[in-house]
Amino acid sequence: MDKRVLLGHGSGGKLSHDLINRNVLPFLANPILERMDDSAVVDINWRTAFTTDSFVVNPIFFPGGDIGKLAVCGTINDLAMVGAKPIYLSLALIIEEGLPLEELEQVLRSVRSAAEETDIKIITGDTKVVNRGSADKLFINTAGIGMISPDINISGANAKIGDKIILSGPIGDHGISVMAQREGLRLKIPVQSDCAPLSSLVEAMLAYPQDIHCLRDPTRGGLATTLNELAAQSKMSIRIFEDKIPIRDSVRIACEMLGLDPLYIANEGKLVAIVTPERAEEILNTMRHNPYGSESTIIGEVIESRTSRVVMRTSLGASRILDMLSGELLPRIC
Amino acid sequence: MDKRVLLGHGSGGKLSHDLINRNVLPFLANPILERMDDSAVVDINWRTAFTTDSFVVNPIFFPGGDIGKLAVCGTINDLAMVGAKPIYLSLALIIEEGLPLEELEQVLRSVRSAAEETDIKIITGDTKVVNRGSADKLFINTAGIGMISPDINISGANAKIGDKIILSGPIGDHGISVMAQREGLRLKIPVQSDCAPLSSLVEAMLAYPQDIHCLRDPTRGGLATTLNELAAQSKMSIRIFEDKIPIRDSVRIACEMLGLDPLYIANEGKLVAIVTPERAEEILNTMRHNPYGSESTIIGEVIESRTSRVVMRTSLGASRILDMLSGELLPRIC
Repeated sequence: MDKRVLLGHGSGGKLSHDLINRNVLPFLANPILERMDDSAVVDINWRTAFTTDSFVVNPIFFPGGDIGKLAVCGTINDLAMVGAKPIYLSLALIIEEGLPLEELEQVLRSVRSAAEETDIKIITGDTKVVNRGSADKLFINTAGIGMISPDINISGANAKIGDKIILSGPIGDHGISVMAQREGLRLKIPVQSDCAPLSSLVEAMLAYPQDIHCLRDPTRGGLATTLNELAAQSKMSIRIFEDKIPIRDSVRIACEMLGLDPLYIANEGKLVAIVTPERAEEILNTMRHNPYGSESTIIGEVIESRTSRVVMRTSLGASRILDMLSGELLPRIC
Repeated sequence: MDKRVLLGHGSGGKLSHDLINRNVLPFLANPILERMDDSAVVDINWRTAFTTDSFVVNPIFFPGGDIGKLAVCGTINDLAMVGAKPIYLSLALIIEEGLPLEELEQVLRSVRSAAEETDIKIITGDTKVVNRGSADKLFINTAGIGMISPDINISGANAKIGDKIILSGPIGDHGISVMAQREGLRLKIPVQSDCAPLSSLVEAMLAYPQDIHCLRDPTRGGLATTLNELAAQSKMSIRIFEDKIPIRDSVRIACEMLGLDPLYIANEGKLVAIVTPERAEEILNTMRHNPYGSESTIIGEVIESRTSRVVMRTSLGASRILDMLSGELLPRIC
């Protein structure tokens, strides 16, 4: 058997069954998935979060992760950002003819490992193959189902004046890591993607259910775009302080070299929390005790304003308006 | 503004928000989707079906449908095939840079129309853009959530000896329609895809909840592959009668011309039901009263056998073993 994915693997016939049974199911199997009916069947009795994301990152392997880890963590994080515990996941592969089976299996190992860490179960899936040149190696879609406790009401629309803004760690790692790998750049100090599942961090923070107003992970568009989204949804303004925003030296140097602004670079293992001022320090301490929040810091606050703006007080004391990312910075970063 | 999708529309920044707000949301909007948080939040208290499918059909428009209609109907049908009523849908777009916005909007109009017909709500979504040559126009993933009544237990594993096999109408329409469109073939009699949502047909059939053992839609791999899957899952054999299998003249002629076997050609609006012999006629009559089942017919039965085989009694009285589709027949048919 050829060690690459063939067009016939997408036929729906014998080759498709072989691919699924030999190269996919062994990495993901559980009793629900193994039934192989057209839908998985489970009992759900919850306030439920439902989300979807497709992943088209190029390249599919990068320092700190790959498209498989990203596809699981990305959807887990979207569930966590409304305060949901991740429960079930779907996994749909679009494979370009010619992908080495070894690369597919390496990606699926990452899928399994990320799913196991967060205890999310992959219960339904799909595999398509397209002819060479009609996709770029591998695209993955995941959709997730999560469980929300009834006392939680987290939304981008819930920020209140005076709320504190917490960032869970340094920004820009994912975008710089993927771009350096794609372009073959040799960075002075190598940068690893921060790709990580944030569900355990959020679970710890939910010890303060009433005090967490908004959560969002600053992925495509970076921190500045995410803050603009939250300001617009909440109809508030946000003020942040430049010297409070953690950025690794390696990322800072790479950004200076490349003329990029780290505020607009994608992250895949960070979150922004908007919380009541009364509990901000306690929530911050809780976050710092989690491995994915150990570098958390308060970067600003929600302020009154007629327009929904994000203003950054620079290190020199000037104020600069941060807009959403305009144009296109780094395509196919996730 | 250029009337095509640009790479920057996938940035996650301002252009992404413009695309979503101007070209996507107006077609799909509902209060849950419009919240624009990272996950949709809904209450679920059901035995739940969960499924996913990616659609990579080429071309994206074909007689009788397009990739948008297909993406909604395909997932609705996967929900219906375990006896679930479709409730919520996710919609994730992977767009190739350069896709005319008009084509995107035409696809989204089809999405809306299919969703409205079946009353399924699109409550979460995602949009990615990849550079020219890294995808082929448009790929769509949908994931679906459905509600199953507690008295229903439908699975490919449930066929019993003596059960009757009902097919809901003529086979091969979808595959021939897409292939003719792709290859620019002029068929003597044009063929329309049968792409359709089967949830209303299944809902009517569920008046006999205990008597419906298996349901499956014969998509990729065609009727022969689907029957093989059901035989293997149920550890039974299946006998069908060639002269009972409805095939339109137009499809038969096209298949003869092209050397294709209609038993292996994809359908997108047909189902196979395996039902108790006692109620087979009543279920058949019920199906014939639904617009998507008006040409339903009993094509065979479940028989005892040491191996799980599908045997076809030909018009001439010979027996022929039907295997799963081997190799690749028509790539990117759905």
